[in-house]
Amino acid sequence: MKVIPKERGIYSFSRNHAPVERVGLGELVMLETEDAVGGQVRSEDTPLESINWTRVNKATGPIYVEGVESGDTLIVDILDIELAPQGVILVVPGAGALGDMEYKPRVRMARIEDGFVVFRDVRLPVRPVIGTIGVAPEDGSIPTAVPYRHGGNLDCMEVTRGARLYLPVYVDGALFAAGDLHAVQEDGELCVASVEVEGRILLRFGVVKGRRAQWPIVEGPDHFSILVSDEDLDRAVRIAAEEAVKAIMRARNWGFEDAYMLSSLCVKIAVNQVVDPKKGVRAIIPKTIVSLKDLLSSA
Amino acid sequence: MKVIPKERGIYSFSRNHAPVERVGLGELVMLETEDAVGGQVRSEDTPLESINWTRVNKATGPIYVEGVESGDTLIVDILDIELAPQGVILVVPGAGALGDMEYKPRVRMARIEDGFVVFRDVRLPVRPVIGTIGVAPEDGSIPTAVPYRHGGNLDCMEVTRGARLYLPVYVDGALFAAGDLHAVQEDGELCVASVEVEGRILLRFGVVKGRRAQWPIVEGPDHFSILVSDEDLDRAVRIAAEEAVKAIMRARNWGFEDAYMLSSLCVKIAVNQVVDPKKGVRAIIPKTIVSLKDLLSSA
Repeated sequence: MKVIPKERGIYSFSRNHAPVERVGLGELVMLETEDAVGGQVRSEDTPLESINWTRVNKATGPIYVEGVESGDTLIVDILDIELAPQGVILVVPGAGALGDMEYKPRVRMARIEDGFVVFRDVRLPVRPVIGTIGVAPEDGSIPTAVPYRHGGNLDCMEVTRGARLYLPVYVDGALFAAGDLHAVQEDGELCVASVEVEGRILLRFGVVKGRRAQWPIVEGPDHFSILVSDEDLDRAVRIAAEEAVKAIMRARNWGFEDAYMLSSLCVKIAVNQVVDPKKGVRAIIPKTIVSLKDLLSSA
Repeated sequence: MKVIPKERGIYSFSRNHAPVERVGLGELVMLETEDAVGGQVRSEDTPLESINWTRVNKATGPIYVEGVESGDTLIVDILDIELAPQGVILVVPGAGALGDMEYKPRVRMARIEDGFVVFRDVRLPVRPVIGTIGVAPEDGSIPTAVPYRHGGNLDCMEVTRGARLYLPVYVDGALFAAGDLHAVQEDGELCVASVEVEGRILLRFGVVKGRRAQWPIVEGPDHFSILVSDEDLDRAVRIAAEEAVKAIMRARNWGFEDAYMLSSLCVKIAVNQVVDPKKGVRAIIPKTIVSLKDLLSSA
């Protein structure tokens, strides 16, 4: 098994980064990852002014996946996520869903023990999330803090242990990277941070040849979720709805009108996060209605 | 038990409507309700041009609830929902999440049998929703098609059998009305309609004296949901997030910063619908974090 140390990371997704490792399809890979603030906060006394904000949101990689070419879809099986016993959460004026309110910067440490996250006197079950996960985008360089078609800072709680993620491939080898683990987060990620924690991710790659996803897709036991990011929630929902309705049209060989009707009844629009440079939603579609091939056909 | 026939209905919520019935706290009440298109569509051949659009979205009522005064919160226990065996769904160009696309008006009938909704060859489990439910608003007259602080066209799938709804009371007696049943709908209600169906709603009213909710609240077994409607999703989420964080501050006697952090970890932002004159979201908060009194305190 190849292990990629957390020092081998990137702060943007781009085809111009040299891969730090090459792995084959089906091979086990372990990524060690920094927390989202680059391990710079180890106590609640850490002044936020001391943080070097150019050293945050690091993703470990990029990995060149053998046998994967531009135009394919990369399959990422998230086999396991291990978390360090302590994480950090912070609020910064101007950031998050309520960034326009008056408040002070603050840092809190949270313990992770016996399957629970402990924030002050509140205990919440651990539900680990890979916040940032993606590949080199079609064009240019996209900071790791931004979610988009290539993945990136998806901050979607479905990207968890046991999930399968599909990502569009724009360059040979995909140039995959991931990091920014959360010990727990809810849909919205309202304050801009979750319990940000170091850890390790155990992955295995696969490929769908010759069909490229339009957006990241998460597969759970009973559903597929199409993850769409855009400037505001309304625009993101508009795009996600169209992707879902087109998949239903293909799946059932129906016209637009019937697929649009059915979408009201069985496509759940959910929120990933409302706090990143692009906001993220997902359209959740039951497997009884669509299959993978309906989702991967081009528009 | 008092039964309110479906003919006794309103097309707007307003303090100026005379009540059609008076009921006491704890008394069982049965509302018969029209479907959202006023029973005007009974077959797929019905031309949409034949529909009188001033006779849609009727809510049965209003009911004067004895013992409920302005400044209180009305409790509505949804004890049962019965559905007719056939519903209707339709798409109209210009309406819904994809109303800007090119398509034709279309009507489909859907059977409701053996606990399933049958739409063409797709069978979905029935999950009944009361689409429109509310009280006289603080000011003026609000069409029943609009959701806002007084309730109205909430189109929230949590407003279902077994749920408890809390509504702010602005006039003595509340002037409650409800209708617009859906046999099944998903978060988003993308095409603008669900399976619209006639039926009956069995309710019982209660009251919280002297505290008025800011927005409708749904209580489920393990959580409360604050239902917020506004012009776009981003604004609605902004308001819902603030309501949730303030409730956490009261519940735990914490400052804003800590409550804001915790909201990232345990407040789920979900979508009610994206297709009504105001869009609707909800902030879902576990009962382990807040109690009813934290939600009903004024801001």
